Amino acid sequence: MNVLLYGAVARRGLDILRKRFSDELHIIVGGEDESEDALADKFAEAEVIVSVGFSAGLPPAPAARLLHLPNSGLDAVDMAAVPDGCAVCNCFEHEIGIGEYVMAAILRHTVGLEARDVRFRGGDWGDSPVFSAPFRRELAGQVVATLGYGNIGRAVASRARAFGMVVHAVTRTPRDFDPTPDWLGGIDDLDTMLPAADFVVACCPLTDQTKGILDARRLALMKPTAVLINVCRGPVVDEDALYAACRDKTIAGAAIDVWYRYADPGGEAVRPSRHAFHELDNVVMTPHLSGWTDGLMPRRFSVIGDNIKRLIDGLPLVNQVHP
Amino acid sequence: MNVLLYGAVARRGLDILRKRFSDELHIIVGGEDESEDALADKFAEAEVIVSVGFSAGLPPAPAARLLHLPNSGLDAVDMAAVPDGCAVCNCFEHEIGIGEYVMAAILRHTVGLEARDVRFRGGDWGDSPVFSAPFRRELAGQVVATLGYGNIGRAVASRARAFGMVVHAVTRTPRDFDPTPDWLGGIDDLDTMLPAADFVVACCPLTDQTKGILDARRLALMKPTAVLINVCRGPVVDEDALYAACRDKTIAGAAIDVWYRYADPGGEAVRPSRHAFHELDNVVMTPHLSGWTDGLMPRRFSVIGDNIKRLIDGLPLVNQVHP
Repeated sequence: MNVLLYGAVARRGLDILRKRFSDELHIIVGGEDESEDALADKFAEAEVIVSVGFSAGLPPAPAARLLHLPNSGLDAVDMAAVPDGCAVCNCFEHEIGIGEYVMAAILRHTVGLEARDVRFRGGDWGDSPVFSAPFRRELAGQVVATLGYGNIGRAVASRARAFGMVVHAVTRTPRDFDPTPDWLGGIDDLDTMLPAADFVVACCPLTDQTKGILDARRLALMKPTAVLINVCRGPVVDEDALYAACRDKTIAGAAIDVWYRYADPGGEAVRPSRHAFHELDNVVMTPHLSGWTDGLMPRRFSVIGDNIKRLIDGLPLVNQVHP
Repeated sequence: MNVLLYGAVARRGLDILRKRFSDELHIIVGGEDESEDALADKFAEAEVIVSVGFSAGLPPAPAARLLHLPNSGLDAVDMAAVPDGCAVCNCFEHEIGIGEYVMAAILRHTVGLEARDVRFRGGDWGDSPVFSAPFRRELAGQVVATLGYGNIGRAVASRARAFGMVVHAVTRTPRDFDPTPDWLGGIDDLDTMLPAADFVVACCPLTDQTKGILDARRLALMKPTAVLINVCRGPVVDEDALYAACRDKTIAGAAIDVWYRYADPGGEAVRPSRHAFHELDNVVMTPHLSGWTDGLMPRRFSVIGDNIKRLIDGLPLVNQVHP
């Protein structure tokens, strides 16, 4: 079976798939930097394409039976351009890294190691109980509220609960989940969830329904002491409203891993937003790295390999999102 | 019953005990700043003394039946000076705050939010996967090893396990624990535990046996990538050896909340060590605050109140450490 790994992320699976399948697969790699002719040949023969994105601008892929994303977000795939008879599958496996990132952001805000270290390093004992320092608030008992309760929301929930946090969540399709949130609602219950949250974690897909769902009105429902953590897609949170809320401190701050503008390697310097988030001291900002851990690609290409095996064996695929 | 709250920490329980006991207790407060005569009267009539420390330098307390520490460490109590027939009890309840602190230090090191935020804020996308950033190591699967497996060790273990960490521990008296460590040894097995640990958490009492137990030889058993976290008492870790290990990076770094020298309010400026830990960039340093959370005193004075009630009712005390 001919498998095309297209793009930098997909190519990371080359060694993993080669080692697993040996001669069973004919694996080819491709990227945007190749000539049109070379790419046309590769797409023409590909039965499986592994790629973060897909659009009508790519060469025809008449043999394609499976487009497998090496990631979860479908926003770079134009489903209308996917050849007839070609299934689309995605994969997750980033929830371990993202769960760690979210808890790191929550604990950074709660324990305040960074600021306290700076003060004590400077010779100031003012954070010492003996010097009548105020108590910090315990994380135990605080509410983490997730917008979305898929793999990421549940990874956050299981970690948060070990700290005695209370877990609230909204999801498109409320049902039985493990772990069971302390409170679970549908997306329409978002306005009910926000006022009680100490931490709001955006971890839903970017869709027409969720684009800008955390707008100025909804951010204003959050406590002034609450922190927003966005680990899904920037535009789920309204860009202007988020900047204003952080700048004006109508919320306590934000940890932002996903953005409104992205730089390209070799391209021009670009800030991740039209607003100067980088000038705000109540924001933690990172370039879409929360799930980027050493366990990610081995797990993802294990899932992709399993699906290729199913395709070969004529079995139903997992994580199929189209058709 | 006459209850003396002696010192700043003990006095924090005044409102809590008053509210609970109303007229059942005669609560008096005292401190080092009072005249000898005033203090002598207070100690003379006290049947319960709540104090962090006790020594022969305090006035006689012939009526004392219970010396209750509002903390866990016994190192400020001279047991030989405790009146005959007076029980000594301590209390914990700090393990929630300390567990949060330890996990904050572990996640700070693992996720690296602080350094990544600085780079991205400066316009550098180099930590982005799209810019071929290296993967960070997942916390999942890493080993946290606790020296001591009391309230604090178990609080760390239950939180760490939610992240998929592997828990190793040594303790004076290995027995059945919840949560059960993946590996458990006696103190004599410390040398076996250290080489496998990614994070070593010192959370044992300071005793003749544990003073300096993490010395140069034992620190050298740790991986060069491992981090030491001390949340019990400074001298459990040899001061010179810890500084040298951090300075020479024979370990990756340390989070240090407990020290070798302490400042007094109103006293001279004092650095917490004779060594310049404050010049090292692989150290996080805080002034003995890890357990200092808003839930601490309500829980501790609930324990103390329970013991006072037991004393009144002639029931056996809990957390009794002497005689």
